[in-house]
Amino acid sequence: MTLFPENFADALLFDDCPHEDLTTVGLGIGSVPGRIRAQFKTPGIVAGAEIAAAVLSRAGASVCLSARDGDLLEAGATILTAEGPAESLHAGYKIAQCVMEYASGIAFRTREMVDAARAVSPKVQVAGTRKHWPGGKRIALAGLLAGGGIVHRFGLSDSILVFDQHRVFCDDFEAAFRALQARSPERKIAVEAGSPEEAMTFVRLGADIIQCERFSPEVFASFADAARAESPNVRLSAAGGVNAKNAALYAEAGADILVTSAPYWGAPQDVKMRFERL
Amino acid sequence: MTLFPENFADALLFDDCPHEDLTTVGLGIGSVPGRIRAQFKTPGIVAGAEIAAAVLSRAGASVCLSARDGDLLEAGATILTAEGPAESLHAGYKIAQCVMEYASGIAFRTREMVDAARAVSPKVQVAGTRKHWPGGKRIALAGLLAGGGIVHRFGLSDSILVFDQHRVFCDDFEAAFRALQARSPERKIAVEAGSPEEAMTFVRLGADIIQCERFSPEVFASFADAARAESPNVRLSAAGGVNAKNAALYAEAGADILVTSAPYWGAPQDVKMRFERL
Amino acid sequence: MTLFPENFADALLFDDCPHEDLTTVGLGIGSVPGRIRAQFKTPGIVAGAEIAAAVLSRAGASVCLSARDGDLLEAGATILTAEGPAESLHAGYKIAQCVMEYASGIAFRTREMVDAARAVSPKVQVAGTRKHWPGGKRIALAGLLAGGGIVHRFGLSDSILVFDQHRVFCDDFEAAFRALQARSPERKIAVEAGSPEEAMTFVRLGADIIQCERFSPEVFASFADAARAESPNVRLSAAGGVNAKNAALYAEAGADILVTSAPYWGAPQDVKMRFERL
Amino acid sequence: MTLFPENFADALLFDDCPHEDLTTVGLGIGSVPGRIRAQFKTPGIVAGAEIAAAVLSRAGASVCLSARDGDLLEAGATILTAEGPAESLHAGYKIAQCVMEYASGIAFRTREMVDAARAVSPKVQVAGTRKHWPGGKRIALAGLLAGGGIVHRFGLSDSILVFDQHRVFCDDFEAAFRALQARSPERKIAVEAGSPEEAMTFVRLGADIIQCERFSPEVFASFADAARAESPNVRLSAAGGVNAKNAALYAEAGADILVTSAPYWGAPQDVKMRFERL
Amino acid sequence: MTLFPENFADALLFDDCPHEDLTTVGLGIGSVPGRIRAQFKTPGIVAGAEIAAAVLSRAGASVCLSARDGDLLEAGATILTAEGPAESLHAGYKIAQCVMEYASGIAFRTREMVDAARAVSPKVQVAGTRKHWPGGKRIALAGLLAGGGIVHRFGLSDSILVFDQHRVFCDDFEAAFRALQARSPERKIAVEAGSPEEAMTFVRLGADIIQCERFSPEVFASFADAARAESPNVRLSAAGGVNAKNAALYAEAGADILVTSAPYWGAPQDVKMRFERL
Amino acid sequence: MTLFPENFADALLFDDCPHEDLTTVGLGIGSVPGRIRAQFKTPGIVAGAEIAAAVLSRAGASVCLSARDGDLLEAGATILTAEGPAESLHAGYKIAQCVMEYASGIAFRTREMVDAARAVSPKVQVAGTRKHWPGGKRIALAGLLAGGGIVHRFGLSDSILVFDQHRVFCDDFEAAFRALQARSPERKIAVEAGSPEEAMTFVRLGADIIQCERFSPEVFASFADAARAESPNVRLSAAGGVNAKNAALYAEAGADILVTSAPYWGAPQDVKMRFERL
Repeated sequence: MTLFPENFADALLFDDCPHEDLTTVGLGIGSVPGRIRAQFKTPGIVAGAEIAAAVLSRAGASVCLSARDGDLLEAGATILTAEGPAESLHAGYKIAQCVMEYASGIAFRTREMVDAARAVSPKVQVAGTRKHWPGGKRIALAGLLAGGGIVHRFGLSDSILVFDQHRVFCDDFEAAFRALQARSPERKIAVEAGSPEEAMTFVRLGADIIQCERFSPEVFASFADAARAESPNVRLSAAGGVNAKNAALYAEAGADILVTSAPYWGAPQDVKMRFERL
Repeated sequence: MTLFPENFADALLFDDCPHEDLTTVGLGIGSVPGRIRAQFKTPGIVAGAEIAAAVLSRAGASVCLSARDGDLLEAGATILTAEGPAESLHAGYKIAQCVMEYASGIAFRTREMVDAARAVSPKVQVAGTRKHWPGGKRIALAGLLAGGGIVHRFGLSDSILVFDQHRVFCDDFEAAFRALQARSPERKIAVEAGSPEEAMTFVRLGADIIQCERFSPEVFASFADAARAESPNVRLSAAGGVNAKNAALYAEAGADILVTSAPYWGAPQDVKMRFERL
Repeated sequence: MTLFPENFADALLFDDCPHEDLTTVGLGIGSVPGRIRAQFKTPGIVAGAEIAAAVLSRAGASVCLSARDGDLLEAGATILTAEGPAESLHAGYKIAQCVMEYASGIAFRTREMVDAARAVSPKVQVAGTRKHWPGGKRIALAGLLAGGGIVHRFGLSDSILVFDQHRVFCDDFEAAFRALQARSPERKIAVEAGSPEEAMTFVRLGADIIQCERFSPEVFASFADAARAESPNVRLSAAGGVNAKNAALYAEAGADILVTSAPYWGAPQDVKMRFERL
Repeated sequence: MTLFPENFADALLFDDCPHEDLTTVGLGIGSVPGRIRAQFKTPGIVAGAEIAAAVLSRAGASVCLSARDGDLLEAGATILTAEGPAESLHAGYKIAQCVMEYASGIAFRTREMVDAARAVSPKVQVAGTRKHWPGGKRIALAGLLAGGGIVHRFGLSDSILVFDQHRVFCDDFEAAFRALQARSPERKIAVEAGSPEEAMTFVRLGADIIQCERFSPEVFASFADAARAESPNVRLSAAGGVNAKNAALYAEAGADILVTSAPYWGAPQDVKMRFERL
Repeated sequence: MTLFPENFADALLFDDCPHEDLTTVGLGIGSVPGRIRAQFKTPGIVAGAEIAAAVLSRAGASVCLSARDGDLLEAGATILTAEGPAESLHAGYKIAQCVMEYASGIAFRTREMVDAARAVSPKVQVAGTRKHWPGGKRIALAGLLAGGGIVHRFGLSDSILVFDQHRVFCDDFEAAFRALQARSPERKIAVEAGSPEEAMTFVRLGADIIQCERFSPEVFASFADAARAESPNVRLSAAGGVNAKNAALYAEAGADILVTSAPYWGAPQDVKMRFERL
Repeated sequence: MTLFPENFADALLFDDCPHEDLTTVGLGIGSVPGRIRAQFKTPGIVAGAEIAAAVLSRAGASVCLSARDGDLLEAGATILTAEGPAESLHAGYKIAQCVMEYASGIAFRTREMVDAARAVSPKVQVAGTRKHWPGGKRIALAGLLAGGGIVHRFGLSDSILVFDQHRVFCDDFEAAFRALQARSPERKIAVEAGSPEEAMTFVRLGADIIQCERFSPEVFASFADAARAESPNVRLSAAGGVNAKNAALYAEAGADILVTSAPYWGAPQDVKMRFERL
């Protein structure tokens, strides 16, 4: 189940159809009953289906969900059907389609990374960043989760990640790090590192997670050995340019977590909305 | 000037930073003053800069805009600078960066299409569709406009476009079309056509715009000649798979308008946010 | 069907009843069941009924709609009935009544204009302006549409209309007009004119619609002949002081569109809310 | 000072200009500086000026208020001036104008009633009902107050008024009335009466205010004498069809309060928005 | 019935569960069906139950209310049950519990005051002030009303209460008071007094209610006698430090109304949420 | 700095003053200038001051903050001053006062716990739960942080805490726990335990934090020794009935974290708002 606020589907719907649908009303077809069937054109992973259903529902259609987020469907298999007057179907279908297309595209690209990485390292996680399109957290994360990813950070208030942009403000980073540790006994502390040398200093400081930014897989592998020798429980994540092509290399190099924005980009996955008159 | 609601920047900001920024507060650096300078890593077109500035402003920084949406900047040229306490800069910078990166990416891809098409047909327009990411109309259109595109449709209430999905509900399409014309004296009527034959029937019905869906450039060209012979003032748009690669071909084939979603997809354009302590 | 956001009925309801209904609660009658029947006192055109029903529904009543927006009802015929505890009926009935009274008043006055104009010119359209009461677009337009009118402009983002207030900013209006045409291939361009001479220059420039501001019917008629001789497809609208009394005169003078705010003003149409205890 | 929420002006503005102003942008005049001067065409009472100023401000103009709500201005006297780029002036001026026109119209009609009534009874109050246009409480009441009226009821949670529609639910009205009195020691209790006989029973029950619905002025006068003989402190209000024409008659008949919706209806007062280029 | 906006329960829910429930999803138990039964640990007064039910409903559970606000329940008696998948129950239960615990705590403390005061003066009312926690009016007043209290003031727009903080701005308080009376014929005028002498001047001015701030019960009693001798209909309220311990003393001293914030403070009443798997 | 949305102060303000302030307007004192000075009556910790300032600002006053959240002030020292017309001061002062009183009360009680606990264990943290008043997260946490506490959980999406209410849904808790660990490499996993025996099983499973519910200090101490012998890095928190009285005992018993809701309950701290006329 995806929980989203009552006004979320409404906001999507009225952004596109703030007043009457000029075409449908003008053609005089508003009350003619019909049905939409949503299907992938090529095999895909369902994502955003509950949101899409809520949009169509709010537009006045009766919706039946035939699949759940995360399901892998064949081309032509039905994701959902919606029945109602033409005015309801036309008010909501394009938004519903867009939600599923963008989310499923993300799900597909996430799944590719997960599958590639787990083929060599079964416990590795693909964690999606905050760098989804602005204002799109709910739909982008629906895609990420449907594709088997996890959420790296929802934002600034749910996790701790020290960047170089923080350290520029610290006179004495070690002292600042100790203060951060003392104030944060219930959370892990992650630190982003730009080189293995820097990374090792953070291991020694006691960081729980080292986020290795733009290490090559080879450099990552040798650092991972050294880091785990120093601190067996430290978690290591690979970030910066990690994508479906190199996911397996980083997994093999010993990454626990692949931190990535790559699945957010790229074309939506085609979802066909077949109309028929009833 | 981009006009957007007071709560728009707030919504972006609090989606990412709903409560305290655990890292900045934990490190004890919140009140240390600093400056961010936003710059493209490669030449780019500024887009979303006023929204980005508003986000940083709402986070408590003083922002100075050095460029306007639509400006083409060299790598390293400054888009904006923001000064304030570290807590303000950290609360807002990633969102500000994302807004500019997504919008500028769209602007760049739009510009490519505009330039390619206008090289062969100086008056052709590149019109962005409604198929941007769901809920992202404001930022996606900021990118589109900055890149020299125009808005195809804001949604269902500002323009008339008859799809096959409408015609499925019409018993007598000609009668429905006449009703639509009668009710819509102040708007143009566009009809999407899937083949030149179908398209010609819409020309004869008196449609103002024929949106040619997935015609090859050759088919488009021969249809365009026939259509204009029949109705000299009809506007012809090419839609469906139109992108930077084939934009010139469709422009050459006689399209008045290239209807496209392609600029919305693809990677954001890198914007570097350089931090310094003051 | 009228599509409106989930929170629209709520906003109306809680604006009037933000906390408890002091009278109903104080009398101790809150849970006594009852029924309201809504009826016109004189024949009228139903408008706003779905919004009214939503308000009563949100207040906790079960509502049955007996008529649809646009229906012409006899005095005493039922528009809707609502059943529920007295507290629900009292929380919502006055707002529901107001919505229907204001919208139906507009519908009635629109219908008068439409009927008067069409008696002499069957295809003329009555187009309601943006000058409804501020913040009341949804209800005012529900009335307009129920009365057979069309929407002149939802606002500034859905149509192009050049006013004298724009021209004051143009150094070279012809050049500006050409730029506007070039950028707007998918929309008609309307220009407001204050005299037949001015109007004819806009016809010659190629405006799609000339909005004739405060022309007398006689002046309108002679201009219309001249304009159509020059440009057979130009649309002509009469605006400024057009109302039920002179609608037929402008229709006869050759107006395609009567642009008016008059239906928005005037008394609401009485809707009787008959209460009975169950 | 009129206090209204930050998002109130925004909601008005973006309802009319949700995205770009197609005309102003298309003409290429967006950044040309200009000034608007708002003036009555005929003498009028300023109302809604702070809201109008806030709308123009939010659209990007610098606004200078030259008058305050309630001021009586000559024709041609300046209410406010706004300076800024054409895009700001065009985005906000029509909404600003509408706010002032609707509110000032209400103020003017209220003032007429107040003046007529006070000429014969200097302490009488004109109280505006809840039957303003739905969702328009803030602007309608700004007009009412500017015209010298008072607010009869903001809604159901701020005052007690027993209607016939409440009594239909009471088995024993006297008992219900006593319960209401007991529970409401800090508020006056008003009861609406449809006849002098009914009204006198409410006086005897101890109602603080009798709202006399559709009594003729003569009937009102004789009831008023009887009521005050019975209960010297009772307040008497005239309601139902009370307007500028009969206000003096009811005032003379002894009404303390004239309860009316009449000022809400009728044409807005013309406000001229004069543009000039700077 | 408690009327509250559709988005009220949503706001409570998403404030606590903005995105996925990391624990429930991570454990893989989201779809396992279960039931919650809400019960008091000690006898208590139900309050906030409809809001709690709405929260659980919005989270996806089916809720059955077994009691109504104001009911006095034994320890262990069921307030409500909710059934649904574990993800729904976990998303909503803590918020639902908090709503009932805070509101019921207030109800209980209100009831104590009401019972104590009415034991000696059966018609006295306990009126809760505006000094509930900020933003908590709806839930705090639900508790107050469930406990048998009344609302002193919803805020500044529904009642008149003159404080010393107002008088500091009056040059001539008597004139200002007369103006206030003239403008407010439909509302009672209350004045807060800091001493019996001051209070008596307000009685003589004609205040409808004297709110006696921090009078001892003895002082209150002697003032009450004097005030009622002067003005038999004046209402007297005791305010400032009035609580369950001294409520009977003030009631005995002749207070009509006990104005208090005390019930808002103190621990929530324990509500046990018993989970079982289905 | 406290970051809160633009509409947060507005929501607080308009909840209390939805329309005109009947008293201030009626007395005719709205435009008389004045000043408020906010001061503690007894020594206290400033909290919520920026929110209070924003409320007064939005009401039209000029505000000067003399202290920051977390500052310990003497009785009579100034927290903030606000200057403006009486209508602005009266519209905002009570809400501003309430915000500071509730938040400062929480700050004070948090500080008491922190000081008591740290006297015996300098690194112990006092973590405030989600059981603040519903909808009050922002103000309650402002108090908590000002008093030196930390946030235990903002909600369900920022941390992992396994309750007995989760385990009831697990067929095989160990398997579920392993799944949770695998999916959550970037977060600590806390488990609530009802007895030392249960707690030790969670230590052995590898939980990062054991939240000991209602252990006596003695039981806590002996469990702590055993747990740390088993797993030196495990964090131990004491929860359930932990308050200022027993904080030192739990700290001495070896708790790393005291999880508590106690500071949220209890009376607000008196803040005097001194008015003077200017």
